[in-house]
Amino acid sequence: MPDARSFTRLVTALPATVPFVAPEALERHRGEPLELRLGANENTFGPSPQALAAMRAELERSSWYGDPESYDLRNGLSQRLGVAMENIVVGAGIDDLLGLVVRAFLDVGECAVTSLGAYPTFNYHVAGFGARLEFVPYRDDRNDLEALAESARRHDARILYVSNPDNPTGSWHDAQAIAALLDALPEQTLLLLDEAYVEFAPTPPLPLDAEDPRVIRLRTFSKAYGMAGMRIGYAIAERSTIAAFEKIRLHFGVNRIAQSGALAALADRTFLQGVIEGVARGREEYAELASSLGIATLPSATNFVAFDFGTPERARAVADALLARRVFVRMPGVAPLNRLVRVTVGTPDERRRFARVLKAVTP
Amino acid sequence: MPDARSFTRLVTALPATVPFVAPEALERHRGEPLELRLGANENTFGPSPQALAAMRAELERSSWYGDPESYDLRNGLSQRLGVAMENIVVGAGIDDLLGLVVRAFLDVGECAVTSLGAYPTFNYHVAGFGARLEFVPYRDDRNDLEALAESARRHDARILYVSNPDNPTGSWHDAQAIAALLDALPEQTLLLLDEAYVEFAPTPPLPLDAEDPRVIRLRTFSKAYGMAGMRIGYAIAERSTIAAFEKIRLHFGVNRIAQSGALAALADRTFLQGVIEGVARGREEYAELASSLGIATLPSATNFVAFDFGTPERARAVADALLARRVFVRMPGVAPLNRLVRVTVGTPDERRRFARVLKAVTP
Repeated sequence: MPDARSFTRLVTALPATVPFVAPEALERHRGEPLELRLGANENTFGPSPQALAAMRAELERSSWYGDPESYDLRNGLSQRLGVAMENIVVGAGIDDLLGLVVRAFLDVGECAVTSLGAYPTFNYHVAGFGARLEFVPYRDDRNDLEALAESARRHDARILYVSNPDNPTGSWHDAQAIAALLDALPEQTLLLLDEAYVEFAPTPPLPLDAEDPRVIRLRTFSKAYGMAGMRIGYAIAERSTIAAFEKIRLHFGVNRIAQSGALAALADRTFLQGVIEGVARGREEYAELASSLGIATLPSATNFVAFDFGTPERARAVADALLARRVFVRMPGVAPLNRLVRVTVGTPDERRRFARVLKAVTP
Repeated sequence: MPDARSFTRLVTALPATVPFVAPEALERHRGEPLELRLGANENTFGPSPQALAAMRAELERSSWYGDPESYDLRNGLSQRLGVAMENIVVGAGIDDLLGLVVRAFLDVGECAVTSLGAYPTFNYHVAGFGARLEFVPYRDDRNDLEALAESARRHDARILYVSNPDNPTGSWHDAQAIAALLDALPEQTLLLLDEAYVEFAPTPPLPLDAEDPRVIRLRTFSKAYGMAGMRIGYAIAERSTIAAFEKIRLHFGVNRIAQSGALAALADRTFLQGVIEGVARGREEYAELASSLGIATLPSATNFVAFDFGTPERARAVADALLARRVFVRMPGVAPLNRLVRVTVGTPDERRRFARVLKAVTP
């Protein structure tokens, strides 16, 4: 009997796809645990001991809802970043905030522009809210800022989504280039700037001008701060944009322990600096390892390195061989990036183990 | 200069309202901490020690994303509840799941029915997705199931939202009454059954028939399990409904520590039973306290008791006087429920302190 209760037209029409297969799913599928988890750019240096201590203490209050305003954290961010609290909203990670921005800005059928092969969760949300995507190919393994702006103009885009530093290439455009992109955008296009990896960037990002209505910056505690499992990130935007988010966001969506850990993590600059330096050393090690095996790598402004195996076939073979040895990495699915294998910078011990396995599987 | 970047028509039209003022906001507004936090039905008995231990241990892996499938927890729930894993989705609390259901089932302009003065976050999501609400008054301080079904028929509703046990009245309809409601619903109406407080109910709920497409059950670790701050709950529904949720839900929205705590909490039946018994004693104490002061109370199937002050003026005066003595409680905003003051059952010590303050402020 067909059931009269029906999904929305939009949901009915959506394909059943999921942006990512998680390492846990790989483990279940393979029936054995992974040895090295280097595919999701989790920060294996972990959270700051101060953040861990704060979270441990806050567990005693886990029966209390978190503050829906994330007041203390927004206050801390405000002081750290020099923007007003009214310019900050906290969400359950950038994935959550991407959905919020898409929902707030894209009417059904409206257009968003992104690089072909860029972070797929943005695309997932655009499809999920019934808007449409225009793709611009990467150029020399970097976001092609001029072509992205041109596409935004041509397609009357409401959002241009750019990750900078970029995922999955690791590439970086400096502040001047992003400022030029902003100036090149048509008036109706919002720049959604995903800065998940910004703490690892080699030069300062575009200065924060929180009252600039042309751009929303997304940042997270998942990467440099090592708190991916806690699901907490934030957006910086002009205050009327934040006020619009307040009308639709999930007010009790952020975990109380995460709020407390993020605030403590923010204060521990020494630990953060150590992570950044440790990751920089790791990137160099990966480049040397690759070079010693005759493999190219892309320059990286993130906590991962894209190893360039030249062809999709070779990249696939290496990724499969790594997984067979219980090493989880990721391979971008779309040409021309599908000749890359993206490897998270692990701890020194993890890097030694990765080097051993990579040497063993590289022909 | 007017900015050409524009919010969706829907977001532009939405009012700037927030379902709840949080206790933290009250503290900031008043400039002093609260003494007793009895307004959000948090479980002050706390989470199970086993859940706390599991969460403490899992903090060591907080740099790892949670499993987007919440596989282990769904597996545990499946075994506990006797429904298939394919009938379960895990979300960041019932608030999150309410949004998911509304988004999946309500096209713009479609109708949902709810009791007037019921849990407002459902209404928030319905408005947020551009659907419309029809309200049915409470009858004798209970959900009026017949009138709700009649309203669903009259307004061609796609969703009927009922909390059972109910918030804010604490009332309960037994399994037979809910079965009759299901049979009375028109074919196109889905029953969204919010069972946040079901563990406290005096009689068994409607048996789970996960393949019944007419109903979605929502449950949480926020109430009986004492983990409100962790933001984790689940929905039980027919598998094609769960599959539809998979197309739009935030796959990485649930905190890793919460997943691990929920699984451990589920296993600790002894602690849960103790909480349920402790809460039952507390409800009796509240009823006796009220009676000794000449105040009526409503029967409760939850972890709170609605004190009935007869008039909105008297209820408001008492709620204000309690707050002046730093006791946080809630008063439903809508007549005829606005003669009630809703007080969470606290620990024995909290109840003693509450009794002292209530006696002092009751004329």
